[in-house]
Amino acid sequence: MGPATRRLTMADVATLAGVSKATVSRVLNGEPGVSAETRMRIKALVDELSYVVSPDAARLSRGRTGRVAVVMPQTTTWFYAAVLAGVLSVLRPEGFDALVYQVADDTESRRFFADLPAKRQVDAAIVVAFPVSDYERRQLDLLGVPVVIAGGALPDHPHVRVDDVAAARQAVTHLTLAGHERIAMINSAVPPDRPYAPPVDRLRGYRTALDDAGLRYDAGLVVELPWSATMGAEGMDRLLSADRPPTAVFAFSDEVAIGALRSLRRAGIAVPRQLSLVGIDDHPLAELSDLTTVRQPVELQGVHAARMALALLGGGSVADAHVTIPTHLVIRGTTAAP
Amino acid sequence: MGPATRRLTMADVATLAGVSKATVSRVLNGEPGVSAETRMRIKALVDELSYVVSPDAARLSRGRTGRVAVVMPQTTTWFYAAVLAGVLSVLRPEGFDALVYQVADDTESRRFFADLPAKRQVDAAIVVAFPVSDYERRQLDLLGVPVVIAGGALPDHPHVRVDDVAAARQAVTHLTLAGHERIAMINSAVPPDRPYAPPVDRLRGYRTALDDAGLRYDAGLVVELPWSATMGAEGMDRLLSADRPPTAVFAFSDEVAIGALRSLRRAGIAVPRQLSLVGIDDHPLAELSDLTTVRQPVELQGVHAARMALALLGGGSVADAHVTIPTHLVIRGTTAAP
Repeated sequence: MGPATRRLTMADVATLAGVSKATVSRVLNGEPGVSAETRMRIKALVDELSYVVSPDAARLSRGRTGRVAVVMPQTTTWFYAAVLAGVLSVLRPEGFDALVYQVADDTESRRFFADLPAKRQVDAAIVVAFPVSDYERRQLDLLGVPVVIAGGALPDHPHVRVDDVAAARQAVTHLTLAGHERIAMINSAVPPDRPYAPPVDRLRGYRTALDDAGLRYDAGLVVELPWSATMGAEGMDRLLSADRPPTAVFAFSDEVAIGALRSLRRAGIAVPRQLSLVGIDDHPLAELSDLTTVRQPVELQGVHAARMALALLGGGSVADAHVTIPTHLVIRGTTAAP
Repeated sequence: MGPATRRLTMADVATLAGVSKATVSRVLNGEPGVSAETRMRIKALVDELSYVVSPDAARLSRGRTGRVAVVMPQTTTWFYAAVLAGVLSVLRPEGFDALVYQVADDTESRRFFADLPAKRQVDAAIVVAFPVSDYERRQLDLLGVPVVIAGGALPDHPHVRVDDVAAARQAVTHLTLAGHERIAMINSAVPPDRPYAPPVDRLRGYRTALDDAGLRYDAGLVVELPWSATMGAEGMDRLLSADRPPTAVFAFSDEVAIGALRSLRRAGIAVPRQLSLVGIDDHPLAELSDLTTVRQPVELQGVHAARMALALLGGGSVADAHVTIPTHLVIRGTTAAP
């Protein structure tokens, strides 16, 4: 058993620094309205308290809190729930518990990451497919515990993910090899303030596959929509109303593709006879939709991330800090020759 | 701030009782091979340690650990992920963290519930749609903190759930009112050792709706299969191979119904012209499948459960300890007159 757990809050810092909680919050959030002297005193104090347990001491007393934080923007879509299942499957037999944080929007994110370093409640953190800002990166570093990224990447931290460029290229190459020449893409729009890589990388993979096949990229065949449950349906409606509709569509994900299938069904367009469709994920419902897709092992990303986190907090190192899990094409009933 | 958190393990109990960890485990698990005297000594010790913090003291120092346990058999299906999202949406603004436990099978469950009372890491526990055995009930009681049940019920604990009998009755009455007389059900089989209520209650609702309509119950029209991703497809295959297939099918859940749709598509049976289909849930993909269903608000069950847990651990009481959230029929494109 390690020492009893000490939970540190902003209130503690305020007490120790002799200032109000609001002042501590302002300093940790980098907001104005606090004198330089007070700012420095609080920052020094936070640094000191954050490192009461030095990294070496933490390594020696493996499992100090017995908890690992799992940070994700949401829990309800299949991807995040499956990563979490993978993480839990590794932590539990090793006697570690998971503290799950859902950081859904910028307000929550700001609050969460502001409080994070002061909490010191965990031995490691796993950040799942979360577009991390510079401010959030600094807060993660302040934690003073290993941080592992699943379903994404962050400089200076180990990560596990799939290669989104390669996955998109697999999907679209399947269509070009079948003889399609007018191939559209329904993509998820990237919020301007959040660098979220998958839509960018999957678009690149789409363009690369077109290049490979000697096909010209046509921006008019790419529909980008903010993520929603029905974006696949809306994207497909838009493509079907074009003067020259495509003969094949690459959807950002299976959930998007399943939405697209609804529009095709309602429009009376036979799949794959009149139009081919491919997604990415191999969502459990892809099989039930007979959807051709590129499979990404999602639970496995959670398993790898948890194993890396446990290795690092135990004082060990990870053999490979940048794991890319291979994806592969799963051909079902929604793709055929044009 | 309350006192520093003391984490208590089986190893601690073993040290204090002067016995091996295996002996403590055997006693807490109710296994043989330990003398009556040792057994009594260990049980007395566990009781004593479990109540170091009396319920009153715990109430006074609200937020002692700042954590709430969320116990669920899995995290990957939509239902559990959505309940979790609801729980987190309430806990976070109140400054509480969620420790998520996935208890997937009997071995994990046994280990988890054996360790549970000794851990004392949480201020309250929310148990989600989990078929709780008598042994597990006793362990939950040993926790000495409020336990709230979401998506189910347990004597002596507050709960929030839907009325599964009523939900099934809504689904099947929609079919009888449309004029169907041969209505089948694809149900989830109940494991013999685990009293899981929804399949039992939904079957009862199905039978009640048939009675209401003056239709005779025919056991040959009920297919029960162990839960799997493809059970809906298998169940429908079985119904379609019958001498006199049904004209309408009530599926245990939307995920089951979406599987059934695949079999119908493959068999070339037009929905709803040749066969009507209805599910329960209003899963996000139900809308995309044009599936008629009975909507149960799932995130809301998590929200209610978390609110009850916070009220109780704050020393308050809940106005209504047995909350039933209403369900309602959502008519889409898979149901019509026979």
